[in-house]
Amino acid sequence: MPGMNTNKKAIVLLSGGLDSTTVLAIAIDRGFDVHALSFRYGQRHAIELSASKRVAAQFNVAQHVVADIDLRTFGGSALTDDIDVPKYDSADSVGQEIPVTYVPARNTIFLSFALAWAEVLQADDIFIGVSAMDYSGYPDCRPEYIAAFQQMANLATVAGVQGNQKLTIHTPLITLTKAQTIEKGLELGVDYGNTISCYDPDAGGASCGQCDSCLLRRRGFAEAGFDDPIRYQSL
Amino acid sequence: MPGMNTNKKAIVLLSGGLDSTTVLAIAIDRGFDVHALSFRYGQRHAIELSASKRVAAQFNVAQHVVADIDLRTFGGSALTDDIDVPKYDSADSVGQEIPVTYVPARNTIFLSFALAWAEVLQADDIFIGVSAMDYSGYPDCRPEYIAAFQQMANLATVAGVQGNQKLTIHTPLITLTKAQTIEKGLELGVDYGNTISCYDPDAGGASCGQCDSCLLRRRGFAEAGFDDPIRYQSL
Repeated sequence: MPGMNTNKKAIVLLSGGLDSTTVLAIAIDRGFDVHALSFRYGQRHAIELSASKRVAAQFNVAQHVVADIDLRTFGGSALTDDIDVPKYDSADSVGQEIPVTYVPARNTIFLSFALAWAEVLQADDIFIGVSAMDYSGYPDCRPEYIAAFQQMANLATVAGVQGNQKLTIHTPLITLTKAQTIEKGLELGVDYGNTISCYDPDAGGASCGQCDSCLLRRRGFAEAGFDDPIRYQSL
Repeated sequence: MPGMNTNKKAIVLLSGGLDSTTVLAIAIDRGFDVHALSFRYGQRHAIELSASKRVAAQFNVAQHVVADIDLRTFGGSALTDDIDVPKYDSADSVGQEIPVTYVPARNTIFLSFALAWAEVLQADDIFIGVSAMDYSGYPDCRPEYIAAFQQMANLATVAGVQGNQKLTIHTPLITLTKAQTIEKGLELGVDYGNTISCYDPDAGGASCGQCDSCLLRRRGFAEAGFDDPIRYQSL
C-alpha cells in the first residue's frame, strides 16, 4: 500500500532519561517504527514524563503512550516513598550493595506492560536501556535477568505459543559505559538537553548534581569530553 | 516476640472468582499468612472486586490490596474493550483457539506486581489460580510459562540475587478440573456464594450463565454434584 509505513514495529521503554533516550535513537537508527512507552508510577521525579514527551517529539515516534500504574501501593523505594534520596557516589561500589533508590520489580513490571502492548501491536521487538556497567547493584539490569524475561515472554503470548512471534528484548547499552552511551547518542543526533537523569530535581527542573544518577551522568559527560546541556542547581 | 504472627507470608492473586478463592483457602490451609492482591484493571466486570473483598473478609486475611492499573491503555480484549463477550461453550476446544476474552500478558503483569510486593514483604511464596485443564487456550496458564516466570523472578530481585530469597510460584489448581477445584474448596470451607465467575454479569450482580466462564463453572458444580449458590439471570 503506497504511503503505508511498513517498518517493523518496536516498543521502546522511555523514561526520558539519558539511557532510554539513547536507546530510542538506536531503535530508530535500526529502522524500527517506534512505539514509546512511559509510566506514571508515583515517582517523585514526575518531571521525567515531560522529558519523555520532548524526546518522543524530537524523534517523531509513531506513538507515545503513558501508562498509569501505582507502585506506591507496595512502597519500598526512595523514588516512590517519602525517603530522602541519598547524595553520594555509589558508582565505586557497583554490584556491592542495593541503593535505596531501587524500585522493587520495576523493570519486570515495565517489561510486562511492554509485552502486553507488543502482543496487541504484533511487534516482535522491545527495547530497554539497562546497562550492566552502571547498574549500581540493580538485579533487573543484568544480562541473565533479561534473557530469563525473554524466555518467559515467548511462553506468555498467543503468537509465541502459535509460533508466529519471536520476541526479542533488545538491550543495546548493556555493555556500554555512560560515556560510550553518550558518544553513541550524539552520533545519532540525540539532544541531551531534552533528557533528565536526576532523582531529585528542583521545582524548576534543574538537576541536583549530587544524587547517584546525576553523578553517573556528569562523570559520563566528563569522560566523553562533552558538555552536559542540562541545567544543574548551583554546582 | 509473643503474640507476633510468625507464619510465612504469601501473596495470593485474588480475582474474587472460583479459582482464586479456592487458592486463597489452600494457602491459608497450608499455614501461610495471606496477603491478597487484586487489580482494578479496567475490566468490565468490576463486580469481581466486591467479590474479592467478601472473600478476603471471610478468610480474615492479613492484608488485601487493590492495585490500580489500566490495561485498556493497549486494548486487545473483550474483557476490557467494547467488544461483545461471546456466548458459547469453548470448553470443548481447550488449547485449540484463543478466546477474545484473553487479556494480553495479564498474568505476566499480575505476577510482576505480586513479585514487587513479595520483595517488599520479604515473602518467598506467590499463589495463582491458573489451571491447565480449563485454560481455554490461554498461554499464560500453562506449567511451562509458570516455570519460566519463576526462573525470571529469582533473577529479578535483590534478595534472589543475594541468595536470601527463593521465590516459588504456587499453582495448586494446575492439574485440577473445575469439579475437583470445587470439591477442594468445599472441604476447606469456601463459601462460593461470595465468588463470581461471569464475564458479563447484570447490574444486580447476577451471572449470565452462558459465557465461557459461567459454562465452565456450571459444568464444574454439576460434575462435583453440588448446587452453585450464586444467582444466575433466568436460566
